[in-house]
Amino acid sequence: MKIYEDNNLYIEVEKSEIPWLKIFPIKKFKELSDCDELTREKLFRVMLLIETEMIKYYKPKKVNIAMFGNYLPILHIHVMARFENDSYFPEPMWGKKQRDVKLDLPDFDKFKQGLLRELSQLQ
Amino acid sequence: MKIYEDNNLYIEVEKSEIPWLKIFPIKKFKELSDCDELTREKLFRVMLLIETEMIKYYKPKKVNIAMFGNYLPILHIHVMARFENDSYFPEPMWGKKQRDVKLDLPDFDKFKQGLLRELSQLQ
Repeated sequence: MKIYEDNNLYIEVEKSEIPWLKIFPIKKFKELSDCDELTREKLFRVMLLIETEMIKYYKPKKVNIAMFGNYLPILHIHVMARFENDSYFPEPMWGKKQRDVKLDLPDFDKFKQGLLRELSQLQ
Repeated sequence: MKIYEDNNLYIEVEKSEIPWLKIFPIKKFKELSDCDELTREKLFRVMLLIETEMIKYYKPKKVNIAMFGNYLPILHIHVMARFENDSYFPEPMWGKKQRDVKLDLPDFDKFKQGLLRELSQLQ
């Protein structure tokens, strides 16, 4: 689900037990080094902003960031808030499942509103 | 094994079937957003340089980049050259193993020499 879009990039929510956003440049690139510098800077600023907002709002144990794109070679950035008791911690979300849990996290919509407010001030 | 160090960061080789480097800031940070801007910029420049050198030298199917730090909450960046026939592709290196293979890759030492040459010109 897309929650944000501007002239350079858009943000999608990954369906998951944890807060997990994906940032895509509007223009398609395969690798990070294919991306023009201006777009790359904007991707990084938004990546950092999402991390900062996740830390403020969710107080996660750790934030995880990843750029893979092996299935579909289109540059995008995963930003994930990780919790000690989430199903995969301390493994990455792509690793071996560690336990069955139901996380009790603060409301995502409130987080989203705060993030969108911050994003509007980045422009 | 450490292959490079300067005033801001150092680079280690991860033992793996694929070319896999890890970049650590000298100063320890937990999250990317804890890192001062100058160090972060240098980390990103080196991350991009490693990606570019890996693409030139190994012609990988895709470069993967990750910042996790769940086991040890110390900021570092993984940069991995991925190949269609490596043991985990298209899964991340932390994912489910797909096959048993022995990759036939160009000499790592030659790659390292080229990378160190480029790094010396970044300063």
